[in-house]
Amino acid sequence: MAKNFSTRDENYSQWYNDLVIKADLAENSAVRGCMVIKPYGYAIWEKMQAILDGKFKETGHSNAYFPLLIPKSFFSKEASHVEGFAKECAVVTHYRLKNSPDGKGVIVDEDAKLEEELIIRPTSETIIWDTYRTWVQSYRDLPILINQWANVFRWEMRTRLFLRTAEFLWQEGHTAHATRLEAIAETEQMLRVYADFAENYMAMPVLQGIKSPNERFAGAEETYCVEALMQDGKALQAGTSHFLGQNFAKAFDVKFLNKENKLDYVWATSWGVSTRLMGALVMTHSDDHGLVLPPKMAPIQVVIVPISRKPEEFAAVSEKALEIKKALLAKGVSVKFDDRDTYTPGYKFAEHEFRGVPIRLAIGPRDIQNGTVELARRDTMEKETYQMTDIENKIVHLLENIQQNLYNKAATFRDDNTHYVNTWAEFVETLDNRGGFIYAHWDGTPETEQKIKEETKATIRLIPIDGKKEAGKCVLTGKPSERRVVFARAY
Amino acid sequence: MAKNFSTRDENYSQWYNDLVIKADLAENSAVRGCMVIKPYGYAIWEKMQAILDGKFKETGHSNAYFPLLIPKSFFSKEASHVEGFAKECAVVTHYRLKNSPDGKGVIVDEDAKLEEELIIRPTSETIIWDTYRTWVQSYRDLPILINQWANVFRWEMRTRLFLRTAEFLWQEGHTAHATRLEAIAETEQMLRVYADFAENYMAMPVLQGIKSPNERFAGAEETYCVEALMQDGKALQAGTSHFLGQNFAKAFDVKFLNKENKLDYVWATSWGVSTRLMGALVMTHSDDHGLVLPPKMAPIQVVIVPISRKPEEFAAVSEKALEIKKALLAKGVSVKFDDRDTYTPGYKFAEHEFRGVPIRLAIGPRDIQNGTVELARRDTMEKETYQMTDIENKIVHLLENIQQNLYNKAATFRDDNTHYVNTWAEFVETLDNRGGFIYAHWDGTPETEQKIKEETKATIRLIPIDGKKEAGKCVLTGKPSERRVVFARAY
Repeated sequence: MAKNFSTRDENYSQWYNDLVIKADLAENSAVRGCMVIKPYGYAIWEKMQAILDGKFKETGHSNAYFPLLIPKSFFSKEASHVEGFAKECAVVTHYRLKNSPDGKGVIVDEDAKLEEELIIRPTSETIIWDTYRTWVQSYRDLPILINQWANVFRWEMRTRLFLRTAEFLWQEGHTAHATRLEAIAETEQMLRVYADFAENYMAMPVLQGIKSPNERFAGAEETYCVEALMQDGKALQAGTSHFLGQNFAKAFDVKFLNKENKLDYVWATSWGVSTRLMGALVMTHSDDHGLVLPPKMAPIQVVIVPISRKPEEFAAVSEKALEIKKALLAKGVSVKFDDRDTYTPGYKFAEHEFRGVPIRLAIGPRDIQNGTVELARRDTMEKETYQMTDIENKIVHLLENIQQNLYNKAATFRDDNTHYVNTWAEFVETLDNRGGFIYAHWDGTPETEQKIKEETKATIRLIPIDGKKEAGKCVLTGKPSERRVVFARAY
Repeated sequence: MAKNFSTRDENYSQWYNDLVIKADLAENSAVRGCMVIKPYGYAIWEKMQAILDGKFKETGHSNAYFPLLIPKSFFSKEASHVEGFAKECAVVTHYRLKNSPDGKGVIVDEDAKLEEELIIRPTSETIIWDTYRTWVQSYRDLPILINQWANVFRWEMRTRLFLRTAEFLWQEGHTAHATRLEAIAETEQMLRVYADFAENYMAMPVLQGIKSPNERFAGAEETYCVEALMQDGKALQAGTSHFLGQNFAKAFDVKFLNKENKLDYVWATSWGVSTRLMGALVMTHSDDHGLVLPPKMAPIQVVIVPISRKPEEFAAVSEKALEIKKALLAKGVSVKFDDRDTYTPGYKFAEHEFRGVPIRLAIGPRDIQNGTVELARRDTMEKETYQMTDIENKIVHLLENIQQNLYNKAATFRDDNTHYVNTWAEFVETLDNRGGFIYAHWDGTPETEQKIKEETKATIRLIPIDGKKEAGKCVLTGKPSERRVVFARAY
């Protein structure tokens, strides 16, 4: 199973790729930049979806669906949006194929050329705001609180499974509000939802903050984000929530009669997370033995492996195993009884370890005699023998313990790799030798940010949302700064 | 609400369109043939998805995700598949836009032309079987039991909301098996899943059967289907399950070592239902007062409308309403307390009636005094006063009753519109004046089927799966026939 598997130290990038492929999460497809999400990977994505979807609905949102294809002209309507997106799109120009005259295969039918090209959505602000125009007349029609689960497409030159793919799956929330303040409150609420999800389900600590203008979403007035730190010291943007002001309402002429009976433009937000979170999850917890999954994200939380030599042993072990399985299911634990007779226990141990199943329960004839089972936890690789009495509650407790331990471990790693630097020399040295999040002063100009990026490949990941004011000098220019911002090299 | 709403008798087609739009299920978008599925419509689709997804998983299937775009050449690999699909596709030819030299908007960048065009999937057999090739070596790798929830695209000339749209949402199951028998068993199993879902959740009776060769899926050896009857006497194909034989395995070279250690091609099935089911649901139950939803498909099963004139009345009524809501939620009933103060009870009654909420519960000051509530059921439009005691169980019972009643009503309609004819004159007369399902003898040739279609627009909907043998003569040619098949005009 783990043969030909790079360690993190040998080659972090190769380790990640090997892991995703060998743990059956995803693979590259015949279509450049597009991945196949395999059943085990998709099961994790389904858990993410279910939890997030529940949180969106708790906060008053409904799902809807908008077209995959967007007329080309829509992208020109919001000036900065087109700069950010229209350049890297899949363009539909024809709507029919025909048999090739040479009898070999099919060719594009040139008679079926579209009058206006259609773009596969890279994001849906334009088509959605074009639709909202007819939905909103008065303040009574607001707010509109809609989310969409969808595939999107951005033509990427260098792709990596989950982290950067041409097609990816995501959710995009698009809300419309009567006031600026209400829209900002929504933007901030959804940021908190993302942070809560990252920390309390993915066991992945995140920083919350605001993007600098250079890193802002194309068309937003303010972009909020959550950023996580991967084990190679690089940052990963795990979710964004945008306050769009009235930009899209103006571009698509979406006006409403407010309570004072005056026409005004509608205020907007959009927010999204994607299958990129799968990459973040893998890189946050996994180790040189394979995938490590926090229990709340694991499709299978407990695997039961029977150990027996003779058929009558197998019968006794199976009976007990099924009893335990039933008790665990009743506690809401997802459990698999791996009774395949085509593989040895050793093979199964290795396989489930590699696939990150949080707890392995082994049970053999001697356990039956002694009233015990052996539990192995994936996070620490520790094995321990437990009395069988009340085993389901012990396992529930252990799962909580693993979830918390993984969060703590990641938080300690993040803290150990957070640096405060004050000079350019320190900045460069820290970036090159240690990586991680670097809190440094910045003079607030896009020019300085750009220069730092060109010289070091580090970008401002965020301006901390809870950052304290602190007078200092910009690490590059020495000009005055009011607060530290967080730099890092990033995915 | 129901202003400008056509009745079924006036104009059935207009009635359907009005209903879908005015009940907020879906609307046409700015993109030709593509619809926007609005939150209320999408909530029904989510219920369909959740139930079907549960059934797929119960029968051993996992979800996965394959690319949206498929290389053009893949379509040529299975000879009959390309005939059925490749002609009506959205073709991606370029991957970049650029600013127009005249400064107005964006244009296609001709430097970014793809070497091979990509097709937006009209269905995914080709890309999936190209992927399965690397997944299967031996019989131990089989079966593969995968489903995908996805959007697909077929360039349709004449579109109708839900019933026929260029882009639609669906699920497509794609399974791989070691033997012909196992694949056929899978095909038949999934047909039963669809029939169960249609009848026991959508309250929509269906016929189960096999398609004639003319109506078979492009690339299948046998297509099984469920067919429902709409209120205008036209049939609607509600789901298909295909036995694909070894056609796709041969086209994509997917071989495996069988138990006898011999190389063989893998056996395949595919099966799907789509957002078309939304159209079927609307047309099966709705009436001239608007939408009618079976409780198992209703996003809101019970709406509570408070009736009060004075604030103190509202307080007392609200308290009771919230108590009932809580009791209903505890019973798993989805319930909305409509306490909007911007609308009158009369307006709310009309709105919820139009949107097909199965039960309306009205409660006013006199009800509080008398310990009663008024329940109105949408299916029969009957109102009745109930004692408040144990109201939640009475409502649960009533919901079951409504579900059953809707099924019975639809089954009666179907039976009343099922005809057995023996001559061509009867056949034509029945089709033109009565519609419905017509059981008639057919000589078994594609030519006759084609001729009947040309002359009457009726097609063979299916050859009944449980059909008895009965000697007879083809209605058109008079040639001998072994069993009746079901004809109808269809959506």
